[in-house]
Amino acid sequence: MTQSRKPRKPNPQAREAQQNHPSSSFSSSGMKLIVPLQGVVQGRGGLLLGTLVPCALFYFLQLYLKRRRSNFSPPSPSEPTLPRTSSRSSLSTRGSISRVRVSKLATQISRPDESLYYVGLERVSRDPYDALENPNGIIQLGLSDNKLCLDLIGEWVARNLEGSISGGVGLGINGIVPYQTFDGVMELKMALSDFMHQVIGGSVKFDPSNMVLTAGATPAIEILSFCLADHGNAFLVPTPYYPGFDRDVRWRPGVDLIPVHCRSTDNFDLNITALEQAFSQARKRGVKVRGILISNPSNPVGNMMTQDMLYSLLDFAEEKNIHIIADEVFAGSTYGSEKFVSIAEILNSDYIDKSRVHIIYGLSKDLSLAGFRVGVICSFNESVLAAAKKLSRFSSISAPTQRLVTSMLSDKRFIREYFETNQKRIRQVHDEFVGCLSKLGIKCAKSSAGMYCWADMSGLIRPYSEKGEIELWEKFLSVAKINITPGSACHCIEPGWFRICFTTITLEEIPLVIERVRKVVESCDSSS
Amino acid sequence: MTQSRKPRKPNPQAREAQQNHPSSSFSSSGMKLIVPLQGVVQGRGGLLLGTLVPCALFYFLQLYLKRRRSNFSPPSPSEPTLPRTSSRSSLSTRGSISRVRVSKLATQISRPDESLYYVGLERVSRDPYDALENPNGIIQLGLSDNKLCLDLIGEWVARNLEGSISGGVGLGINGIVPYQTFDGVMELKMALSDFMHQVIGGSVKFDPSNMVLTAGATPAIEILSFCLADHGNAFLVPTPYYPGFDRDVRWRPGVDLIPVHCRSTDNFDLNITALEQAFSQARKRGVKVRGILISNPSNPVGNMMTQDMLYSLLDFAEEKNIHIIADEVFAGSTYGSEKFVSIAEILNSDYIDKSRVHIIYGLSKDLSLAGFRVGVICSFNESVLAAAKKLSRFSSISAPTQRLVTSMLSDKRFIREYFETNQKRIRQVHDEFVGCLSKLGIKCAKSSAGMYCWADMSGLIRPYSEKGEIELWEKFLSVAKINITPGSACHCIEPGWFRICFTTITLEEIPLVIERVRKVVESCDSSS
Repeated sequence: MTQSRKPRKPNPQAREAQQNHPSSSFSSSGMKLIVPLQGVVQGRGGLLLGTLVPCALFYFLQLYLKRRRSNFSPPSPSEPTLPRTSSRSSLSTRGSISRVRVSKLATQISRPDESLYYVGLERVSRDPYDALENPNGIIQLGLSDNKLCLDLIGEWVARNLEGSISGGVGLGINGIVPYQTFDGVMELKMALSDFMHQVIGGSVKFDPSNMVLTAGATPAIEILSFCLADHGNAFLVPTPYYPGFDRDVRWRPGVDLIPVHCRSTDNFDLNITALEQAFSQARKRGVKVRGILISNPSNPVGNMMTQDMLYSLLDFAEEKNIHIIADEVFAGSTYGSEKFVSIAEILNSDYIDKSRVHIIYGLSKDLSLAGFRVGVICSFNESVLAAAKKLSRFSSISAPTQRLVTSMLSDKRFIREYFETNQKRIRQVHDEFVGCLSKLGIKCAKSSAGMYCWADMSGLIRPYSEKGEIELWEKFLSVAKINITPGSACHCIEPGWFRICFTTITLEEIPLVIERVRKVVESCDSSS
Repeated sequence: MTQSRKPRKPNPQAREAQQNHPSSSFSSSGMKLIVPLQGVVQGRGGLLLGTLVPCALFYFLQLYLKRRRSNFSPPSPSEPTLPRTSSRSSLSTRGSISRVRVSKLATQISRPDESLYYVGLERVSRDPYDALENPNGIIQLGLSDNKLCLDLIGEWVARNLEGSISGGVGLGINGIVPYQTFDGVMELKMALSDFMHQVIGGSVKFDPSNMVLTAGATPAIEILSFCLADHGNAFLVPTPYYPGFDRDVRWRPGVDLIPVHCRSTDNFDLNITALEQAFSQARKRGVKVRGILISNPSNPVGNMMTQDMLYSLLDFAEEKNIHIIADEVFAGSTYGSEKFVSIAEILNSDYIDKSRVHIIYGLSKDLSLAGFRVGVICSFNESVLAAAKKLSRFSSISAPTQRLVTSMLSDKRFIREYFETNQKRIRQVHDEFVGCLSKLGIKCAKSSAGMYCWADMSGLIRPYSEKGEIELWEKFLSVAKINITPGSACHCIEPGWFRICFTTITLEEIPLVIERVRKVVESCDSSS
């Protein structure tokens, strides 16, 4: 289970480095000529002939080619603009020659997805299961969307929509139509602070002035990345981790994610020694580590950090003088006997420097409101708060939604009943689903929160490698027609683990899913 | 009027350059020692003693200090983690010594605002005018928020809220609560396409597949900047321009804005020769220009580009092989006799390469729905569309708002009546307001769209410079208690121009505002 394997992905550092040096991805014909030429010369001589001479040659050739190129397109600045009529016709041919260039980022991310997490989601969108309309479609078990309590939310909205949006707070249309503060209206921050106190429990009560609201937890993570690290810096992140982090942290902030591998033998709990090692290796490579990004409760495993582990993490962060970003979006979706402990809860001592701790929360998971796009950054760092408030202009929640949510969160009786029912329903589906998997010989990691189980199917893969894992994933998708997330998409170091979300289906639909899983298990057994 | 003046702002290139070289903003005590030392040595010798020797000294000292520093904090990687209890107490002192570092971006933008546009908005928020509650507060004329038709929107929402959010499209709660596609639901794209056809008129009809929806036009501009240019590249932008562009384009995308100055003698119309000059000067400085960013109708002037000008702009962009970003958010807020021409309207010929043209639109201005945060990118470039769709995860519109807006846009009778009334009311307030200013001796630039006038108060400023302009702005804010936007905040090259938004007040409130303006005019006249 813990045996080593080949690196799964092209080294992200190498990719980053290439991105930072445009010349290395340079593709003019001149460059193509020079690189082999340099190789030829290097093969022959010593230091002088093998390195210095080709380098000098390379430099002058580059210079020559650069000068030659600038004589072509775009035209020299002194060239006068053509009058409209004549230019129109002359451009008709030119337009087809030189296509306009887009940014490196756009070039990179406009390509088809590499992450199988996103490939899976896309495959479902083309052929989604529907009991009546498309019973042979793909069942979505790859997205942690909670559909178990849509009935409760639906009833509340039906009863309260009118009052909460246009009348509820006595503001009328003036409270929803004109510009509001980008980082969220105070009423919602206050309601969210109360709500989080209720959900997270314990002593945690955020001051609304320490909150910045964003259009979901996704932009909250991105904004924090922009605030805590510069392009080329890195965060440590325990694996397996949520595949979306790669997009949120790497794409626009340009911050690298350095995996800290957790093992099945520890039930994928974080190990501080592994954290130390990853940190020191990064330093040796010259990478500046600016923070640790954790999801607690863990996505995809569903385990939670103990208070002791949180203290150790804080010690580590203080010692290295780095930040902690704690993504706690599943804080209220617990179903075990364990109590969730927020990192905010251990910050009460006077001698702890709170300014390095930043918490992400949102309503997509615990309140099932993924479509509402409501997220929040809770921070104790004045600079981060000031910057995040200004950056929230790019990710504001629409005012009608803010009013609706304020009203819902303020209905404390509804919230209490919703949470009781929701946790009960998650527990029911979890227990039933994991029990059925167990009967098929598939064991899951010990978990007590989240909307998914982390299933060990290493016994079903041939070969025992990422290749085997991907082949099994493909079989689930195209033969059994269920989409699950392979561990490789979560950067898990051990092959054969899969995240399966069970809150997208009802208790009644479990037999159908299990039947589809059984087919795959049997086909694997018979072929071995 | 057209005389030259000192540069208004610290050179943005210099600021950028400093940002890219962290060592230049380095502030350790070691550095503070070395810099004067280098100066002393430089003062004495020739090339060798004056430059080479100090440079070598400087290099070795830096190396020495760097090594010495790394012996302190953070500790060397081989140092074992302290056990929790002992580390807790040892950290209590250390925590207070080294504060955790935030990113350069956060450091930069968390500082108090420099732009007087934002300073003014902030000042209003601390002491906002209210006829009953705070009659001596500051009147907001600095924000282009349209409050003239809140009654119409309010009535529509009251009539249609229930049906449009939960029932309208037959999707029920499933259409608003779970995850929806990040780049906007198809129903809203289709409704928006029809709406834009109605507003922009002519032959323009966008294919919904060419649209990416975002949480307002602000993130739409930012996303386009990320897609079209790399960090350190630049866009040309005619001045005066909307102050928000500096945040949208510079902050996170790191794209520079190169001003192309328009003059009062041309009624601030764009001049292609000035564009050519700005482009060639940028190239000489080694800056890669990737596009032209225009607002049409212009914000803050309120004039519109002719069809001929749009053709010339397209010729220019084709010749230089760069992009055009056209921010058309005021397309439907016209009040003159001129017809608005969208750049989309001249793209119908086969020989035009549409892939370089990108249009920004939104509902904050023309439909008064600033609080709803609904924006759209319309592009003909497949790579840009694919990338922007993926980036919309950071800036999604909440589903309830999407349903509500879909329903509103689909009510074609309401939209037609709203536009008739809205344009009539804007025209009334514009004519009355500009007429009153004229009687005070303040002339405005010729305009036919937008929610503001561009007023020439150069006769009121002493000295005739940015300093005089800012003093006048301060007098308006603190003496007359009205917030307007000084031309310097819009990068206008001529001092004494101000943008005054008149749609934040009613026809009945004009005398009050004009009375306050009169006081300032009279105090200027008496002091001269």
